Amino acid sequence: MNLKEKSLQLHREYNGKLEVNSKIELKSKEDLSLIYTPGVAEVCKEINKDKYSAYEYTIKGTTIAMITNGTAVLGLGSISPLAGLPVLEGKALLLKEFGNVNAFPICLDSNDPDEIVKTIHMIASGFGGIHLEDIKAPECFYIEKQLKETLDIPVYHDDQHGTAVAVLAGLYNAVKILNKTLEELKIVINGAGASGIAIARILLAAGVKYIVLCDTNGAIVEGDPTINDAQKEIAKLTNQEFETGRLQDIIQNKDVFIGVSVENVLTKEMVQTMNQDSVIFALSNPTPEIMPDEAKAGGARIVATGRSDFPNQINNLLVFPGIFKGALEVRAQDITDEMKLEAARAIADLVTDKELNENYIIPDAFDKRVSKVVANAVKLVAESNAIKKLVAI
Amino acid sequence: MNLKEKSLQLHREYNGKLEVNSKIELKSKEDLSLIYTPGVAEVCKEINKDKYSAYEYTIKGTTIAMITNGTAVLGLGSISPLAGLPVLEGKALLLKEFGNVNAFPICLDSNDPDEIVKTIHMIASGFGGIHLEDIKAPECFYIEKQLKETLDIPVYHDDQHGTAVAVLAGLYNAVKILNKTLEELKIVINGAGASGIAIARILLAAGVKYIVLCDTNGAIVEGDPTINDAQKEIAKLTNQEFETGRLQDIIQNKDVFIGVSVENVLTKEMVQTMNQDSVIFALSNPTPEIMPDEAKAGGARIVATGRSDFPNQINNLLVFPGIFKGALEVRAQDITDEMKLEAARAIADLVTDKELNENYIIPDAFDKRVSKVVANAVKLVAESNAIKKLVAI
Repeated sequence: MNLKEKSLQLHREYNGKLEVNSKIELKSKEDLSLIYTPGVAEVCKEINKDKYSAYEYTIKGTTIAMITNGTAVLGLGSISPLAGLPVLEGKALLLKEFGNVNAFPICLDSNDPDEIVKTIHMIASGFGGIHLEDIKAPECFYIEKQLKETLDIPVYHDDQHGTAVAVLAGLYNAVKILNKTLEELKIVINGAGASGIAIARILLAAGVKYIVLCDTNGAIVEGDPTINDAQKEIAKLTNQEFETGRLQDIIQNKDVFIGVSVENVLTKEMVQTMNQDSVIFALSNPTPEIMPDEAKAGGARIVATGRSDFPNQINNLLVFPGIFKGALEVRAQDITDEMKLEAARAIADLVTDKELNENYIIPDAFDKRVSKVVANAVKLVAESNAIKKLVAI
Repeated sequence: MNLKEKSLQLHREYNGKLEVNSKIELKSKEDLSLIYTPGVAEVCKEINKDKYSAYEYTIKGTTIAMITNGTAVLGLGSISPLAGLPVLEGKALLLKEFGNVNAFPICLDSNDPDEIVKTIHMIASGFGGIHLEDIKAPECFYIEKQLKETLDIPVYHDDQHGTAVAVLAGLYNAVKILNKTLEELKIVINGAGASGIAIARILLAAGVKYIVLCDTNGAIVEGDPTINDAQKEIAKLTNQEFETGRLQDIIQNKDVFIGVSVENVLTKEMVQTMNQDSVIFALSNPTPEIMPDEAKAGGARIVATGRSDFPNQINNLLVFPGIFKGALEVRAQDITDEMKLEAARAIADLVTDKELNENYIIPDAFDKRVSKVVANAVKLVAESNAIKKLVAI
């Protein structure tokens, strides 16, 4: 049986991957009177008096909503919201396994950003956080921004920030091997959607100076009237030398290629035109922008992909469980840029100097330490911000 | 420690009552490739081709949304949607325990019926059913009607139908003891909100001829301009003799009192004015409209309450787990009146003629057989309707 048949069979056998269980055993009528009426009324009253007590008395503090509208699912593009449910279930399962956070999947049947924002507002109060998933760019930027500005719980779009944090973690260790700094790198990001733009933003925040984004129409450059608003914004902060042309032109004399695009767009010949000691993060899934052996044949020194069957798997799984674990544990109201930067550093630092080499720049996705150090990083930032606020008062 | 303190402590200790777990063990990277990328993409594609395959491949077929806006919570009236969460969690726990159905609570932050309908539309596709809870009348009638007309999954408002089915089940057995028929009973329902109106409707559907509904302003009577639309509709079908006055007037010479109102509104003296062999269902929680000993002292032959510490507990718990269990098992697209009638009959029939007596007219809420027979009743109706449709073609 091939992978396709195995996966279909497994999903059919279990009728989906999640279940909702009780944490409290119901053995007697007295239990019932505490869990349900009449005792539960006292709990309702407490929360009605003080909404923050819901973090203690209900599942709010340990549960997030995982929401998609199905417009950018894996490599499939726009499918129905319901067809995005298997991915949500999978990520919810991983969030529980690696972060001990409960997540419930919601398929949201709308392509209208304002309608999506409004619907999430309506259902947000019972959740401790909102995990946006598989929502296409540029709408995802607007939706996330609106929600972050108006909700008092953390909002996090994994396709943007999960990938961005994992990439930065890998790059922190890649430059260590190369004995370079982020500041001196010339980076091409291929793919100017949700992930590509978020990667550009976190790299800039981390100190990278030279980034050019590309998409199927070539380099993203300020002043191009054909690019979308999110691309216009990032164009102001990147491609400061106004490079134009296709990937094959832009890639020349660059140090790093980061692909969040489609399979096979990078060739050995293109890699040959890059600077010495080039770094290739070919993250398209399941088939990378270039296969690792080809990239190496083109002269790349460090190659990473999104796949588990090659070295250096750069995967969101390293990020989102720890992000939400940490955010929920300190009841953070937001996931800040600082938290993401610290999370990337924490992931990178799990690889010791002794272990670090071209084929081991990032911890294994199954390494249970990862979500713990990411959660701790998030918590430290949240707590130090809280102290700063107190001192400011 | 009293009940209040015990309940608060229990909820605090567990941080709420539910958790989301994986049904599939994640042991290896191969598991990951089936559960998540790349294998999961195949499942997404199947569902995108055929939405009904989601019943096989995802949690849709075994999971419902349990939704409140917090406007009619237990005896507390209108509180915040979030403050209604402990009740939703409790009912979700019971649905799992007694019906093996997964339910996830959603606090919906709106009092506008159209907004509520729209939000539920937006999030419905991932669920196998919608359980409305603690939404006040008359809005609940409109919301349920709109959703039933437009969604292709079952929609069920427990405060209406759970209570109605349980009351009818109790009444089926009460008349057996009295050797009467439903047709000859004169019934007063005190409380003309969601439950009261739904009880009136199911009793009419079961063959009851004589019903007068009362609320705090007295009998609901056709032509009264001060009553709401839902009350106007039910007024057309009840109180055919145009009785007017308060409960103390209406109760005279009636056979059955059904209270879904507030504590202590029925007195021993009022019961004394009822017909011989009167039946009192005093369902206000936690304190009934009249305490059983008082009702008996007034001459009542059969007394039921909503409480577990008196005989004859008439509780929704007898109904909703089996209703959803049955509806999901046959993928019913609706909960029909016929299903509710058959469910009531099935609950009543669990009490054998030998067991039946004034203090045992309804099975115990913890009786695990109940949800099974209710589910079977729902499934039989669904299947016979499907056959009727086929024959009609």
